Amino acid sequence: MSTHRPPARGFPVAEFESRVQAAQRMMHEQTIDVLLLTTEPEFRYFSGFHSDFWLSPTRPWYLLVPLQGQPIAIIPEIGASSMRATWIEDIRTWPSPVPQDDGISLLKTALSAVVPRFGSIGIPMGPETHLRMPLCDFQRLRDELTGKQFVDATSVVRTLRMVKSEAEIEKLRHVCGCVSAAFAAFPQLAVAGATEAELFRVFRTELLRCGVDKSPYLVGAAGAGGYADIIKQPSDVEVAAGDVLIFDTGSVFDGYFSDFDRNFCFGVPASEAARAYDVLYRATEAGLAAVRPGVTTSDLWRAMAEVLDEGGSLGDQVGRFGHGLGMQLTEWPSNMPGDDTVLQAGMVITLEPGMVFGDGKLMVHEEDVVVREDGYELLSQRAAPELVVIG
Amino acid sequence: MSTHRPPARGFPVAEFESRVQAAQRMMHEQTIDVLLLTTEPEFRYFSGFHSDFWLSPTRPWYLLVPLQGQPIAIIPEIGASSMRATWIEDIRTWPSPVPQDDGISLLKTALSAVVPRFGSIGIPMGPETHLRMPLCDFQRLRDELTGKQFVDATSVVRTLRMVKSEAEIEKLRHVCGCVSAAFAAFPQLAVAGATEAELFRVFRTELLRCGVDKSPYLVGAAGAGGYADIIKQPSDVEVAAGDVLIFDTGSVFDGYFSDFDRNFCFGVPASEAARAYDVLYRATEAGLAAVRPGVTTSDLWRAMAEVLDEGGSLGDQVGRFGHGLGMQLTEWPSNMPGDDTVLQAGMVITLEPGMVFGDGKLMVHEEDVVVREDGYELLSQRAAPELVVIG
Repeated sequence: MSTHRPPARGFPVAEFESRVQAAQRMMHEQTIDVLLLTTEPEFRYFSGFHSDFWLSPTRPWYLLVPLQGQPIAIIPEIGASSMRATWIEDIRTWPSPVPQDDGISLLKTALSAVVPRFGSIGIPMGPETHLRMPLCDFQRLRDELTGKQFVDATSVVRTLRMVKSEAEIEKLRHVCGCVSAAFAAFPQLAVAGATEAELFRVFRTELLRCGVDKSPYLVGAAGAGGYADIIKQPSDVEVAAGDVLIFDTGSVFDGYFSDFDRNFCFGVPASEAARAYDVLYRATEAGLAAVRPGVTTSDLWRAMAEVLDEGGSLGDQVGRFGHGLGMQLTEWPSNMPGDDTVLQAGMVITLEPGMVFGDGKLMVHEEDVVVREDGYELLSQRAAPELVVIG
Repeated sequence: MSTHRPPARGFPVAEFESRVQAAQRMMHEQTIDVLLLTTEPEFRYFSGFHSDFWLSPTRPWYLLVPLQGQPIAIIPEIGASSMRATWIEDIRTWPSPVPQDDGISLLKTALSAVVPRFGSIGIPMGPETHLRMPLCDFQRLRDELTGKQFVDATSVVRTLRMVKSEAEIEKLRHVCGCVSAAFAAFPQLAVAGATEAELFRVFRTELLRCGVDKSPYLVGAAGAGGYADIIKQPSDVEVAAGDVLIFDTGSVFDGYFSDFDRNFCFGVPASEAARAYDVLYRATEAGLAAVRPGVTTSDLWRAMAEVLDEGGSLGDQVGRFGHGLGMQLTEWPSNMPGDDTVLQAGMVITLEPGMVFGDGKLMVHEEDVVVREDGYELLSQRAAPELVVIG
């Protein structure tokens, strides 16, 4: 069991107020009258509304953040009770599902009533976003809202969410601590001869015992001397002596994700796998040593890439060496050439170097860190310097 | 531990071929040249590609189903290895993330090469759908693909997915059996004085022990004599004697969901709660008795609503009394007035009557069934006829 005491759930109202105020300042600069938000993380970021119910695709949920004043929630009636437990006061509901008019009239009325200063409605439309409402409904809304234009508000939401508050970091530290404890316990729980699916079950159960709320993301693969895929569901194949196993988990506490992996070997590792592990361990060290405010994500990429190149990497399949982390498994920015995001204190990122070695085998390492004024704080417990042997 | 032996994972290639052929027949009727699919269930339905990686919002994934021939996958390089393990042969990748052009050029080339018979590209745009790609990218694609129109293909995907194959039903039967076993074991594992969050953890662990792969959906609430919210995350409030607790879980085996709930009472229930339970139990019985091919979803609603009205229901907050079930927690159709979907053998639906009673308390029951030629097959183990007492 984790010795970490879990932080309190939720946030004080002041945290939501300051998020909204910061958004409104940016909306002024970008001449946006109102934000229209439809996806779970954005909705939760500004409202505090937190429910698994987003898994059901049936009903749309809308949150408006106007240039002045408080957000307006336009939501299915089934969410009213949970919504009233948040700081949001203006809650408008309809008895969804109503396929002919699933909130669109309510939404149109609310958007029409926003005092038009600039005539523009901001929606996140850029990379890593999507619109969680039926496209037909969006087209109808756009056609009926004459005199308003829809503009891209990706940078408002992205800029705010990229830098975490200490209260957010506390949740991230906790979940990473729980996952570190589960990874530490795993070698004593696993045996060769179990199937991948059985090992997944053992590890998921240990994650719960160590204090995570749930593990919506768990992928992994095992193979003789290495694996070739890092986004795989478990198979019914038995893990054998000599297999290298990776688990990569996005586990959650109070809506905040861990995202890191660990590699294990059932018995003595093949020398190629041990060598790849060493190269990746040193690449991660180089990445860590580079983390501080003012450095860019492409600098981090370069620090890791140099070690991998010298270590004989044959490429990677991931396209980047880590990314932002928080309310989602992966967030902006990406550690890669051309991203060039400047690190700021309070950003939470993963360092995730990967390399192809031997006959097309892949290995990936990953750690989670907060950027601090004087460098970084590690959230995950640092991986062992050598491949952990099971059995 | 569940005594159910898990079915084999995945499907034979013939199952995917028949899904594609059925889609192509409907595309002919609806004059659609190609389907452009962007969301996880649709992608998995036609390709068999199955990964938790969809949780990461970073990368878009595209599947084309042309009017003739096999589907084309246009996907991030990180998915290539998993994709090659499916039946899909035409796999085109790019080193995503590339925010400037995240697959759009590849997608445009592929769509341009589809022999234009009707000049139309079908996308699901209707109720319960969304487009999982950045809106800016969609606008760019639409602007650049001159001479093609995008049309709504909701009914193609919806019609096909609504009726399940026996191989799909086997997975649903298995996961519902696992969840039934966990619900049966729960009263021996729970004690008053535990917090909601602790009870969630106990139940999640038991679900894994009983054989589910994971439980992405678990909501619940406890309250004196009843609860007021059925989509809540766990709180740190301690459950007390007299509390009624509901758990509602969407647990998964091999990508197929259960969706049903159970109610428990810590100690002797208040008479109002016991009465509400009895009314809901009888409403579910009336719903079950009505299930058979040819009956409509509004008939099912009416059968349950009559019992609830007679039993003194003060309304419900859910807006319907059940829905389709399969690769998603909730699928088309809805058991409600105006839906009027005609039941066919092989449809899998939930019966989910709910009622408000007393001073605004809510209670919901739920069972999962397959429509069969002669009526129905229950997938969930039928709830107890009286509120289950813990302690």
